Amino acid sequence: MNNLSPRRRLSVDQHAATVLAALGGARTPVETVALRSAPGRVLATDQAALLAVPPFTNAAMDGYAFRAVDAPGALPVSGGVPAGVAAEPLRAGTAVRIMTGAPVPVGADAVVPLEDVTVDGDSVFLAAPPRPGQHVREAGEDVRPGDLVLRRGTRLSARHLASATAVGLTALPVARRPRVRVVVTGDEVTSPGAPLGPGQVPDSNGPYVSGAVTRAGGEVAGLTRCPDDAEALVEVLDHADADLVVLTGGASAGDRDVVRDVLEARGCELVHVMMQPGKPQGCGLWDGTPVIALPGNPVSVVVSFAMFVRPAIEALLGQTPRPPRWGVAARGWRSPAGRRQIVPVTLEEAADGRRYVRPASEGGTGSHLIASLAAADALAVVPEERDEVLEGDLLPLLDLP
Amino acid sequence: MNNLSPRRRLSVDQHAATVLAALGGARTPVETVALRSAPGRVLATDQAALLAVPPFTNAAMDGYAFRAVDAPGALPVSGGVPAGVAAEPLRAGTAVRIMTGAPVPVGADAVVPLEDVTVDGDSVFLAAPPRPGQHVREAGEDVRPGDLVLRRGTRLSARHLASATAVGLTALPVARRPRVRVVVTGDEVTSPGAPLGPGQVPDSNGPYVSGAVTRAGGEVAGLTRCPDDAEALVEVLDHADADLVVLTGGASAGDRDVVRDVLEARGCELVHVMMQPGKPQGCGLWDGTPVIALPGNPVSVVVSFAMFVRPAIEALLGQTPRPPRWGVAARGWRSPAGRRQIVPVTLEEAADGRRYVRPASEGGTGSHLIASLAAADALAVVPEERDEVLEGDLLPLLDLP
Repeated sequence: MNNLSPRRRLSVDQHAATVLAALGGARTPVETVALRSAPGRVLATDQAALLAVPPFTNAAMDGYAFRAVDAPGALPVSGGVPAGVAAEPLRAGTAVRIMTGAPVPVGADAVVPLEDVTVDGDSVFLAAPPRPGQHVREAGEDVRPGDLVLRRGTRLSARHLASATAVGLTALPVARRPRVRVVVTGDEVTSPGAPLGPGQVPDSNGPYVSGAVTRAGGEVAGLTRCPDDAEALVEVLDHADADLVVLTGGASAGDRDVVRDVLEARGCELVHVMMQPGKPQGCGLWDGTPVIALPGNPVSVVVSFAMFVRPAIEALLGQTPRPPRWGVAARGWRSPAGRRQIVPVTLEEAADGRRYVRPASEGGTGSHLIASLAAADALAVVPEERDEVLEGDLLPLLDLP
Repeated sequence: MNNLSPRRRLSVDQHAATVLAALGGARTPVETVALRSAPGRVLATDQAALLAVPPFTNAAMDGYAFRAVDAPGALPVSGGVPAGVAAEPLRAGTAVRIMTGAPVPVGADAVVPLEDVTVDGDSVFLAAPPRPGQHVREAGEDVRPGDLVLRRGTRLSARHLASATAVGLTALPVARRPRVRVVVTGDEVTSPGAPLGPGQVPDSNGPYVSGAVTRAGGEVAGLTRCPDDAEALVEVLDHADADLVVLTGGASAGDRDVVRDVLEARGCELVHVMMQPGKPQGCGLWDGTPVIALPGNPVSVVVSFAMFVRPAIEALLGQTPRPPRWGVAARGWRSPAGRRQIVPVTLEEAADGRRYVRPASEGGTGSHLIASLAAADALAVVPEERDEVLEGDLLPLLDLP
């Protein structure tokens, strides 16, 4: 039944390198977005400050501004500095009432907080000799115009909006969201909600990959369910109209060689990757569009997405890689020697500053246990050379969207 | 200048309780959304499986299905089971070719993987005696109809979509996003991009709070910048049309008592909360709508949002509280005794399974250092009773949107 050549065996690292090589260093084009649309996007170029922070010398406390050389002693109050307007220059030998953030008048070089003065009629009495510059924020003390404020490759969040606004930026150049075509193959998969015939299963891979693509910063160009039919699959791939195609079910072994035939005829090689789950994988270019072929098994899809697809999307975005997180095994389990094992785990944040991990599925690490995924918090990675995990072992973690 | 009564002093926990009390246990109404719209939403009710997982007994490997009692020995191959259709019952004494996930024919009770058989013409030779049930996934092995699959209060992600789909769910009841009106007060704040006059600063609080509200699961009902003018503020609050109002700049002390006057006249008390930064805070109901008043200082707003506003939004959503994360101080710093200190920190995930924290701003913890926020990864919390943090101390962390 199977006249195709045996598949090459690749390590996880080799296949990951193949996937990145298929992208050929491509980045999505840069587009400029208003700040309110920037959260979740990846900054395309370094951003320097246009304005100083603070933009003018101002009071760090509510109180009185004066010349340090005039204190200690009693000073007549010559006025007040409201917010949002220019301050009149200070008359020597007087003090002005000032609020936090209001401009310190020219001539004043110190602010004393309300609680440190005694008010007597129209005068304030300063008991302690002030330090020149006390409670005064100098213009540009935090940021000067031209200072680097945001680095390219940053995944933007609300705090970056605050910083950008403070330094005078109103729009940011970001990487266009990579358009990802999701293709779910298999005669047995049906659209969610459609009545199930004998031997049929609802497609959980399409919803998963679509949600995870969006979370990773991509845009789903479309989700297509395609039977195991060569012509239909060619038609879908010829009209992918995307920066990346993610195909599930096409990499499995067995009788489903129609998918393998189609992909390999166009240069997408299917391989065996030394991992558990997720052994059958594939990658290549279809008319120049990168295609990542995953197994059909739902948990294998989840694991493969984290290992190969998310890094590809982040590479297209130019996102700076995040440093790995680590977890401590709260109990041991078996792992297949020679294969990298990726296990859905629950996390327990402990008050010793460590996070402890346990397999999310009590029954084992079966790749069909899709329902147990709902209880998992992350994926733990067991290196190839280990045949078991011992309590207390440190394992790198992958985010689980 | 200030004829208002002294403010009450509250602990952080007291003010947090006041904020939650102002919500009066309210939840936003439940609405039903299609699965593809569910990521980021909070599940409103427990969800039970409609379908079994797997929905039918199927093969766990590519190989041959047969009766265990017929092996070891040679068995004629009587056919194949394709994916997505009903399997014919097995003829006793024969084997059928089967793919992973295809239905195991009635009569068969074991599957042998391809690599464990020898094919000879139209027969397969099974060397080892099989274990009944081997490589067979029983219908309902993972989930039975009626099993609890998703818990109410869960913030939904892609993996929950996969689980929901697998058990036959196509739409989910979720809490409506709380509508949050953002009001930025202050004569000195200008809209981002507007030319800055003397004493004016670009408003970074509006963009921050808007982005953080969205990230927390809320919907920004509108962002209004309002001068320190009683009539204008009353007008804005009278037409808030929201589940929650978040006001910045209104809680500060000093001459800005117009805001305090307006709020306190309608029952929103302004208080001093024993924290650094973020001492001036306020909370109450405006015609029945909860109002949380924050200081105007940008870093104080960030800290106050994490302490009081996000918990309020999550309470309106009915979201299950997340367990706290912990960080280890990589170096020491000073903290004000009697006040809870909340410090923007960078995180370093170390290979000993701990995450180490350092203040994001080398220069100190100044509440005006908004630009340094861009470099921070989280907020670290120093308890009231501490006057310094020592290297190696464990500190609870808050997410920093």
